[in-house]
Amino acid sequence: MTQLINDKDLNFLLYDVFKLEALTKLERYQEHDKNTFDSILDTAKGIATDYFAPHNAKADQHEPSFDGKQVKTIAEVKTAWQQFAEAGLLCAQHDYEHGGMQLPTLLNMACNAYFMSANPSTVAYSFLTAAAANLIQAFASPEQKQLFLPHMLSGRFAGTMAMTEPNVGSSLGDLTTKAIPLADGTYNIKGQKMFISGGDQDITENIIHLVLARIQDAPQGVKGISLFIVPKFKTNPDGSIGESNDVQLAGLLHKMGYRGTTSTVLSFGENDACLGYLIGEAGHGLKYMFKMMNEARVGVGLGAAMIGYRGYLESLNYAKNRPQGRLAHEKSPDSKPVNIIEHSDVKRMLLAQKAYVEGSLALCLFAARLIDEHQAAHDEDSALLLDLITPVVKSFPSAYGPKANDLAIQVLGGAGYTRDYPVEQCYRDNRLNPIHEGTYGIQSLDLLGRKLWQHNGKGLSLLMQRIQHTLSEIQNPKLVALAESFQQHLATVQKTTQVLGQALHQGQINEALANSGLYLDMMGKTMIAWLCLDMAQQAQLKFGNSDQKEDQDFLAGKFQAAQYFIRWELPEIEHQAKLLMNFDDSCRNMQADWF
Amino acid sequence: MTQLINDKDLNFLLYDVFKLEALTKLERYQEHDKNTFDSILDTAKGIATDYFAPHNAKADQHEPSFDGKQVKTIAEVKTAWQQFAEAGLLCAQHDYEHGGMQLPTLLNMACNAYFMSANPSTVAYSFLTAAAANLIQAFASPEQKQLFLPHMLSGRFAGTMAMTEPNVGSSLGDLTTKAIPLADGTYNIKGQKMFISGGDQDITENIIHLVLARIQDAPQGVKGISLFIVPKFKTNPDGSIGESNDVQLAGLLHKMGYRGTTSTVLSFGENDACLGYLIGEAGHGLKYMFKMMNEARVGVGLGAAMIGYRGYLESLNYAKNRPQGRLAHEKSPDSKPVNIIEHSDVKRMLLAQKAYVEGSLALCLFAARLIDEHQAAHDEDSALLLDLITPVVKSFPSAYGPKANDLAIQVLGGAGYTRDYPVEQCYRDNRLNPIHEGTYGIQSLDLLGRKLWQHNGKGLSLLMQRIQHTLSEIQNPKLVALAESFQQHLATVQKTTQVLGQALHQGQINEALANSGLYLDMMGKTMIAWLCLDMAQQAQLKFGNSDQKEDQDFLAGKFQAAQYFIRWELPEIEHQAKLLMNFDDSCRNMQADWF
Repeated sequence: MTQLINDKDLNFLLYDVFKLEALTKLERYQEHDKNTFDSILDTAKGIATDYFAPHNAKADQHEPSFDGKQVKTIAEVKTAWQQFAEAGLLCAQHDYEHGGMQLPTLLNMACNAYFMSANPSTVAYSFLTAAAANLIQAFASPEQKQLFLPHMLSGRFAGTMAMTEPNVGSSLGDLTTKAIPLADGTYNIKGQKMFISGGDQDITENIIHLVLARIQDAPQGVKGISLFIVPKFKTNPDGSIGESNDVQLAGLLHKMGYRGTTSTVLSFGENDACLGYLIGEAGHGLKYMFKMMNEARVGVGLGAAMIGYRGYLESLNYAKNRPQGRLAHEKSPDSKPVNIIEHSDVKRMLLAQKAYVEGSLALCLFAARLIDEHQAAHDEDSALLLDLITPVVKSFPSAYGPKANDLAIQVLGGAGYTRDYPVEQCYRDNRLNPIHEGTYGIQSLDLLGRKLWQHNGKGLSLLMQRIQHTLSEIQNPKLVALAESFQQHLATVQKTTQVLGQALHQGQINEALANSGLYLDMMGKTMIAWLCLDMAQQAQLKFGNSDQKEDQDFLAGKFQAAQYFIRWELPEIEHQAKLLMNFDDSCRNMQADWF
Repeated sequence: MTQLINDKDLNFLLYDVFKLEALTKLERYQEHDKNTFDSILDTAKGIATDYFAPHNAKADQHEPSFDGKQVKTIAEVKTAWQQFAEAGLLCAQHDYEHGGMQLPTLLNMACNAYFMSANPSTVAYSFLTAAAANLIQAFASPEQKQLFLPHMLSGRFAGTMAMTEPNVGSSLGDLTTKAIPLADGTYNIKGQKMFISGGDQDITENIIHLVLARIQDAPQGVKGISLFIVPKFKTNPDGSIGESNDVQLAGLLHKMGYRGTTSTVLSFGENDACLGYLIGEAGHGLKYMFKMMNEARVGVGLGAAMIGYRGYLESLNYAKNRPQGRLAHEKSPDSKPVNIIEHSDVKRMLLAQKAYVEGSLALCLFAARLIDEHQAAHDEDSALLLDLITPVVKSFPSAYGPKANDLAIQVLGGAGYTRDYPVEQCYRDNRLNPIHEGTYGIQSLDLLGRKLWQHNGKGLSLLMQRIQHTLSEIQNPKLVALAESFQQHLATVQKTTQVLGQALHQGQINEALANSGLYLDMMGKTMIAWLCLDMAQQAQLKFGNSDQKEDQDFLAGKFQAAQYFIRWELPEIEHQAKLLMNFDDSCRNMQADWF
């Protein structure tokens, strides 16, 4: 049977590293305890294993198609959706009074991890719907909530985010979809949206699109953007489905991977009969959308981490069971071949994967804990810190998850390149993640150009405090040595940040931001090195005196992953720092005609 | 129309960097001149453009299928094959007396570059056949040659290399296919082979498999391996096709990319009626096969380079024509969006691709020139040098070509992830290259464990001489500065090589080879940095005084690519060198149970 996550690792992360149980001391979560948490994790694991994983490959092979009236998906997708909804997972974090389970984000993220490992393209419908519902819950009017929210949370309706347009791409300020005010306070929506995931399907009775559009005579740029609820079918006050709302499928996009999730071009208001409901205030659309987008960005990070994690487990299993070749010193052809996990280069490929994916999962769970600290413990610092690291949480897993999948294929060799092993699909699926919800380049500009300097750089100070806290706890001599190496590189990051900050302050904007991608990678490596170190330290505390071989193996693995990452990968930031602090102009000065 | 190569770049490489015309001074090539070379290049480009490129995507979408009797390919593959054969390209390098064109390998490699860019999976049938024919030409008996060679060179028969077996993978010494001697000097072949490209198809009348097998009672290991010609159908002395030779298709492998090339599992002798002809001496099979394999390894490097090159050109074209976003300092939403090629991070992605793919192509052409120097000028030093660098020629493009394709997708963003743009297929196709004809790990062991130390390390001395020659020519002040940086890193490579060599000499085999992948990457970066510098230097000589803008742009581009590679990528070897010289044990000491 497919292993989705190393359960021992997940438990360790939740209860030891990120102290899930401590959250039950908060009022919001006080009715939970470890038993309810474990039982919910079991439920999620069970549904992911029984209803999501089995059709992951099938959904890839039979991608959604348009029959002229509606987009068709394979039947298993709808069944999986229903199981997810019936388990209450669409509203796992909503208040009890709204029928939710009031689960901590940390626990919910762990549940999501199972689904992302099992079948990222089928669960995308659920995650988009949950995120859309969260946005409506946060910003829509009571009437709007009443009309749509119960049906989204119960799984009758799905949700999407409809931002991008064909000629606009990531530059949302240039979007042109129009909203014409009607006498009754609603709007007529007109325009085309592209790359809308879940934009059409045959899973739910209705689809609630959250559409960015520009109200007639609104100003140019982002300040003129408003957010609208645009259902596929009009919805009657009793919840029944009304007539079509003039939302047409203009085309399906056929992707390299993530094929089970429909990606659509949608035309709104081709017949001037597309009804939209304005959410909140006009001109604040992007701000509201960022509620959903930030949630989606962390979700992308988690997806990238878990597709990477899945590939890691698959390649680990293969390497442990595939005999081939001999160690370098063994020359006799009569000797027995070893399992390939004995080869140093295969160990390297597995150890790199382990560091990338366990580090990435830890990063996403850390983000989840910050959300809990903010939302349930009302700690504003946590919100600041989350804001700072969101580009990293989105981007590190999106860059290194695919790297892990690349290594997973390489471990399997020719077999890994065939469609008979799941690592092939993982590689294709994960390639989406550095692109959607803001490309790697856009995230790097967001981090270096904006997030670092908000609130006088308080986010970075908060991060450094967390890091120093970990360092201060370390006593084991082997870990102390690693921590010292780490600190040297941390000083480089701080110095680089200072130099770039000064340049920005002095108005050297293009110069300072030209190599922002390097900075994002540097910050990602720093956070992962810290988390690998923290995991090794927590494993030391938990298992240091255990006499179980399994525990000692776990501890040794966490230590070795931290050592690998800090010795092999982290030092690369020294060279990156030089390029950044020299404002290296190799790329910036390149001219289009020189290519 | 699809652009396959930047012709100005290819001409520059052939005539200025690698001095193609000078080869006409050698007896073997004396009947050629620049006109014949150009006309052959034109022919290759024309056939690649008209008969290969148009069905590249179609062959990917309609992969070969088995109808119970035979594997079927789309009709365009056969037409392309015929065009290639009719142009004489299957025997481009063979002697005039055997109906060949006696073309320099350098020119032939350039022709091949067009085909690899146009359609790597269709041209694989041709390249495998040409390589198999070369092996037969070199080692088979006159009777064997007479029976098969004319039909392979004319395109009636295709060829394959059949080495790998299901339980053996890369560990060829363990292969178990048997050859039972018959009274007439032929053999009965019995066994199963896997991952045999072109193992069945409906393009040619017959398929000539070159099969590694073990003659009854042969010793264990590589010394017991012999090489056999095993036709799919028996072949009569008059060239007509006889009865089936008991070679059965046991299965088709379905790959992520390179789908147009059949990949097969073949059963030989299920009915004990599979006839094989021993090539040369028993027990020398692997030595003969390495003739083909080394040719194939350079071919893999070229394929990886050209799939990378194709993606580079596609993404360059997109970036020059896609308006989106504004420069970092431009805040006004009323300003006009710029083409994305104006963004620093997009320049970075294009410049990295340019350095990777132009450097990789140069590396493959350099290998081709060494083959000419050896085979036509009888320079044994060139053969030694080629032997040393073959793992690098195979591996650098195979590692960085896919990286280039990854960046090409990223430049296109969401569009690049759809199957509507060719960069998506490039990414899937190129993923094969770090695997076949010896994985990256195997190449690294070949380089560090074997090739470097042959002939008392003469290969490396020869390489250093070539590099020093380039450095000694550089006078332009901007290039001098780059050359100085390069030399510092070169010293690191030399020192690292020395330290590892000593360790190997002292018997620390596992320790010294544990991180061989780092060494291979280090050597690859060094060679590419050298070639980028050499290209910039040759461009300076050729275009330094030109008053044509196009020439000055070309020169500036070559300079900037060299600067990018030497400033951004080459310095990474310093950290790699530290890990290597410390014999870092992070990977080697990892234990299977710790994962």
